[in-house]
Amino acid sequence: MLGRGVWSSLRQGLSRGLSRKVGGWASGEGRKMDIAGIYPPVTTPFTAIAEVDYGKLEENLHKLGSFPFRGFVVQGSNGEFPFLTSIERLEVVSRVRQAMPKDKLLLAGSGCESTQATVEMTVSMAQVGADAAIVVTPCFYRGRMSSAALIHHYTKVADLSPIPVVLYSVPANTGLDLPVDAVVTLSQHPNIVGIKDSGGDVTRMGLIVHKTGRQDFQVLAGSAGFLLASYAVGAVGGVCALANVLGAQVCQLERLCLTGQWEDAQKLQHRLIEPNTAVTRRFGIPGLKKTMDWFGYYGGPCRAPLQELSPTDEEALRMDFTSNGWL
Amino acid sequence: MLGRGVWSSLRQGLSRGLSRKVGGWASGEGRKMDIAGIYPPVTTPFTAIAEVDYGKLEENLHKLGSFPFRGFVVQGSNGEFPFLTSIERLEVVSRVRQAMPKDKLLLAGSGCESTQATVEMTVSMAQVGADAAIVVTPCFYRGRMSSAALIHHYTKVADLSPIPVVLYSVPANTGLDLPVDAVVTLSQHPNIVGIKDSGGDVTRMGLIVHKTGRQDFQVLAGSAGFLLASYAVGAVGGVCALANVLGAQVCQLERLCLTGQWEDAQKLQHRLIEPNTAVTRRFGIPGLKKTMDWFGYYGGPCRAPLQELSPTDEEALRMDFTSNGWL
Amino acid sequence: MLGRGVWSSLRQGLSRGLSRKVGGWASGEGRKMDIAGIYPPVTTPFTAIAEVDYGKLEENLHKLGSFPFRGFVVQGSNGEFPFLTSIERLEVVSRVRQAMPKDKLLLAGSGCESTQATVEMTVSMAQVGADAAIVVTPCFYRGRMSSAALIHHYTKVADLSPIPVVLYSVPANTGLDLPVDAVVTLSQHPNIVGIKDSGGDVTRMGLIVHKTGRQDFQVLAGSAGFLLASYAVGAVGGVCALANVLGAQVCQLERLCLTGQWEDAQKLQHRLIEPNTAVTRRFGIPGLKKTMDWFGYYGGPCRAPLQELSPTDEEALRMDFTSNGWL
Amino acid sequence: MLGRGVWSSLRQGLSRGLSRKVGGWASGEGRKMDIAGIYPPVTTPFTAIAEVDYGKLEENLHKLGSFPFRGFVVQGSNGEFPFLTSIERLEVVSRVRQAMPKDKLLLAGSGCESTQATVEMTVSMAQVGADAAIVVTPCFYRGRMSSAALIHHYTKVADLSPIPVVLYSVPANTGLDLPVDAVVTLSQHPNIVGIKDSGGDVTRMGLIVHKTGRQDFQVLAGSAGFLLASYAVGAVGGVCALANVLGAQVCQLERLCLTGQWEDAQKLQHRLIEPNTAVTRRFGIPGLKKTMDWFGYYGGPCRAPLQELSPTDEEALRMDFTSNGWL
Repeated sequence: MLGRGVWSSLRQGLSRGLSRKVGGWASGEGRKMDIAGIYPPVTTPFTAIAEVDYGKLEENLHKLGSFPFRGFVVQGSNGEFPFLTSIERLEVVSRVRQAMPKDKLLLAGSGCESTQATVEMTVSMAQVGADAAIVVTPCFYRGRMSSAALIHHYTKVADLSPIPVVLYSVPANTGLDLPVDAVVTLSQHPNIVGIKDSGGDVTRMGLIVHKTGRQDFQVLAGSAGFLLASYAVGAVGGVCALANVLGAQVCQLERLCLTGQWEDAQKLQHRLIEPNTAVTRRFGIPGLKKTMDWFGYYGGPCRAPLQELSPTDEEALRMDFTSNGWL
Repeated sequence: MLGRGVWSSLRQGLSRGLSRKVGGWASGEGRKMDIAGIYPPVTTPFTAIAEVDYGKLEENLHKLGSFPFRGFVVQGSNGEFPFLTSIERLEVVSRVRQAMPKDKLLLAGSGCESTQATVEMTVSMAQVGADAAIVVTPCFYRGRMSSAALIHHYTKVADLSPIPVVLYSVPANTGLDLPVDAVVTLSQHPNIVGIKDSGGDVTRMGLIVHKTGRQDFQVLAGSAGFLLASYAVGAVGGVCALANVLGAQVCQLERLCLTGQWEDAQKLQHRLIEPNTAVTRRFGIPGLKKTMDWFGYYGGPCRAPLQELSPTDEEALRMDFTSNGWL
Repeated sequence: MLGRGVWSSLRQGLSRGLSRKVGGWASGEGRKMDIAGIYPPVTTPFTAIAEVDYGKLEENLHKLGSFPFRGFVVQGSNGEFPFLTSIERLEVVSRVRQAMPKDKLLLAGSGCESTQATVEMTVSMAQVGADAAIVVTPCFYRGRMSSAALIHHYTKVADLSPIPVVLYSVPANTGLDLPVDAVVTLSQHPNIVGIKDSGGDVTRMGLIVHKTGRQDFQVLAGSAGFLLASYAVGAVGGVCALANVLGAQVCQLERLCLTGQWEDAQKLQHRLIEPNTAVTRRFGIPGLKKTMDWFGYYGGPCRAPLQELSPTDEEALRMDFTSNGWL
Repeated sequence: MLGRGVWSSLRQGLSRGLSRKVGGWASGEGRKMDIAGIYPPVTTPFTAIAEVDYGKLEENLHKLGSFPFRGFVVQGSNGEFPFLTSIERLEVVSRVRQAMPKDKLLLAGSGCESTQATVEMTVSMAQVGADAAIVVTPCFYRGRMSSAALIHHYTKVADLSPIPVVLYSVPANTGLDLPVDAVVTLSQHPNIVGIKDSGGDVTRMGLIVHKTGRQDFQVLAGSAGFLLASYAVGAVGGVCALANVLGAQVCQLERLCLTGQWEDAQKLQHRLIEPNTAVTRRFGIPGLKKTMDWFGYYGGPCRAPLQELSPTDEEALRMDFTSNGWL
């Protein structure tokens, strides 16, 4: 396994080479925070009576800390954040900050439905240790979430946030795609550093990279299923549910892409698609948590109304890992 | 204008006649609460700095109190409930309880994403005066919201709720329809009294009436656009955003349906479709609030990220009322 | 069973009463053809080697001829018209013309993808005996089928057609809804007499009736599942796949609606929803043809790629009829 | 510009290197036809009175013949095949065969709605010179087009076709995706050599490559917008509408991918996304034909109901090319 320094160099290499961006974002005057790399979106462990199990959370973090991740996403869609109280959301971020390695980034999901609540949650998350905020699109009134409304929302949040903001588009959950024109406009905001795009449309991702080329704006793939293709069109990393269980493999895929070993990257990518779909779209968080149990982490139950997998589904989930050689 | 007693008799007539149900639900042993009738889903007024304006809320209620509504829905989708804190949600219910006529029903929207939070909100709303709870389907993890998950969710809520529960399906906001088989199963729960169905699929509504015929289960149309058709297939009332501005007309449509004056009902229904679409799907809550301003109520601003209408949209909104003779 | 004259009178009554239209369309100067009533969309029988079985077609027609239908639709979606050659399409229309009672209407589906081919097919169908043409929206290039394109298409067809044209919107097959504004514009064409709307959105249907009120424009429900509701909002008839097997019942539902017996209509409508869904959306033409076999008609096989029902599906299909008392 | 021999070598390199397949398909015993490479889907030119203009077709072919395409697709979705008669479809294929260079492949779209008609059209197209048939999914009865139905359809066509068959999935037109499990099953048929996938979901494309790895089964990207990403996950070529106007550039993108020059490939890919979207999803065939006029080919009118672009749309179309430096 390569050490952190090597990985950092590799990413620098990416910045100088494949990517359209020269140098790093973090260092220079006026540069945006560099968020390149792989992040597992951490799950929230619950006890048998559905209380947050902070001890198990820390244990999971310690195990995940051994992989060359760039950092951790807390309260992405896989964190069951809509089921947590505001106090729980902040406490989870605080605990992750303490349990994770000091040199990694903590990206905290701070999205709420109203702009005001999102601003407050973002500020609070910064106070408890988040390095950047990942802000999902509001969605209950999706029929009114025009580009203008979304630009207004994100601009307000970014204006008032003490930490950089990452846009977050996840149509499978929200039923809406943050429009490309809104992304391009928002990329010009000095405190908006990138987007986590979970839709899987690489044409769109390539276009976003193309049209934000002058803004130090970074695209993260929202899933391991299209990670290779995302790197190919200019993404600089990924937030991958699968990295909660196959952390080494997802990081290896990153390395193969960064070093231009596309043949091996393709072979590895192929073997990750079915397991990735299984722990995301096909079986959701219950599938991801069940798999975590198999791989030596604490998965445990979800909060209701999310249900446990049926034995049949569990069998199919296992098959998606065994048939690709991972179990 | 007819008095309350006459309306009550009319509804009794409906129960004996057109409807499949004999008598009322409220009185007898083992009968479910009778929720038949028209309800405006009350909007939440905000001040210029986006605080809840409880004074304006009460003023609106006093004006609306003069119509023969069966009651009021608080924190349906039109109440901007996803933008309110838990404390605001309860305070709004409490204020409406005090401001509204004593003989009307208060149906409070208590849905949250998690089952536990929904139970707690339902119990709290009962404590501050709600007669029944309207519970929207959880939706962020819609890919996992199978019939089994939704049956589990609603059963838990109904088991623990001190007040009757009304199911609430609103696919335009949630991206999911509560499946008919789940509705049929849930209709057998003694504390689940009906469904507010906003999808507009009358084939589905007729089937729900048909398959729940033995359970005292009541269907409310979720919009004035298909109110006549809903009565025709067996619904017993409606929760109609349009009733916030055309309260007399929506109640008149109810009366025409209940008394079998279908020709006049049809003519009136026709003139309500465009105004109804304008204040719901087409221009959303900003359109509804703007129209309230025109009709002598306090509409005022929405909370962000909902935006004000553009002048062009406002013009189109007005046209949908003027072209049908309402302005 | 009532005779034809009585039915005609009933429909006149509808025209004078419930409907917005006074008198009939067929008689007076400048009036459009009256198409009010119920139509089964006739299936195309095939032999075991997938040739059109004209003998069985005629037998079916003779049996169907005993019901008080207004006429027959040939080569609607249930006629497998996309699987027929141009010659077969015309031959089927010709045979139906000869086999059906003289006093009924023959509405022939003449839609093709190109405007030119549709014009030619419409003219040919008139020549072999169609009284009117039902023209489905072109759909392969649905992304380009704007209101303007569709208005142009239908105007051209209506200009050149020797027989009246009925618009036909069936989104389940075509993936597009003929927009209301296009329908309103087209309703002004003297040779466009109505629309068959299979989408099931009664709000839309009511709006179409409302906005075409001055044009003698008639709306036919495209399915028996929402027939009652369609009459309630101003439709004047229906093209109902279910009428191929429950012809008496669908006609009885029409009679109950026309005579204002809404309670009985509702009860009957309820019992028709599941059987209707079974022979349309749920099991498609294979389901309809299997049911025809059960009810004494010739159903027989479909052309490939449509497949026979599995035994499990066949069991579920039967249950949808038995549980409602029809088998 | 490189000569044909060089390109062939490059593709061999791809076969030996990046791709999972060793050697070529065309030569050895039991190998499937090698279809790797870039294909423009040829448009069908019409005169002012909407007749096929075979002269213009040949002129276009002669101009296109100078690029290192692997061949031509005739009567893909861009060929307006649903607007052509059977005779025109065959005549177009025949003319293209005569006008195109001898060493290139002619892939002819032979899909019809019925299995029988598709078989007949495929056989006829082979007779007039097609090297392989591209068969679009039947779609009018998409609700019944299960994997079983589609497997049956394609198996029958492949069994009876004298030339290799390429599957064709284009959900934007057909409203259905050929399911992955059906593709995997069909890949085992000796006469089914690959799939043209126009959906743009590279996760799906990667999975298809992965699961058909032992069947000499080849994936072609159905659009230039995701061509680079498709190569990255294992596709071996593309059918690209954009190649009708930017033929050199699409071929250059292929070369950059085959030779592993991913940085330059990414830059070029980025500049092709907006022009590609403009001539496909955004402005459709009218947009493509208008652009052909600008680039020295004959575009001309479409058959109705496809409409000419409005001046506003034409301006936007031009901007998508100028802003990326192509006009």
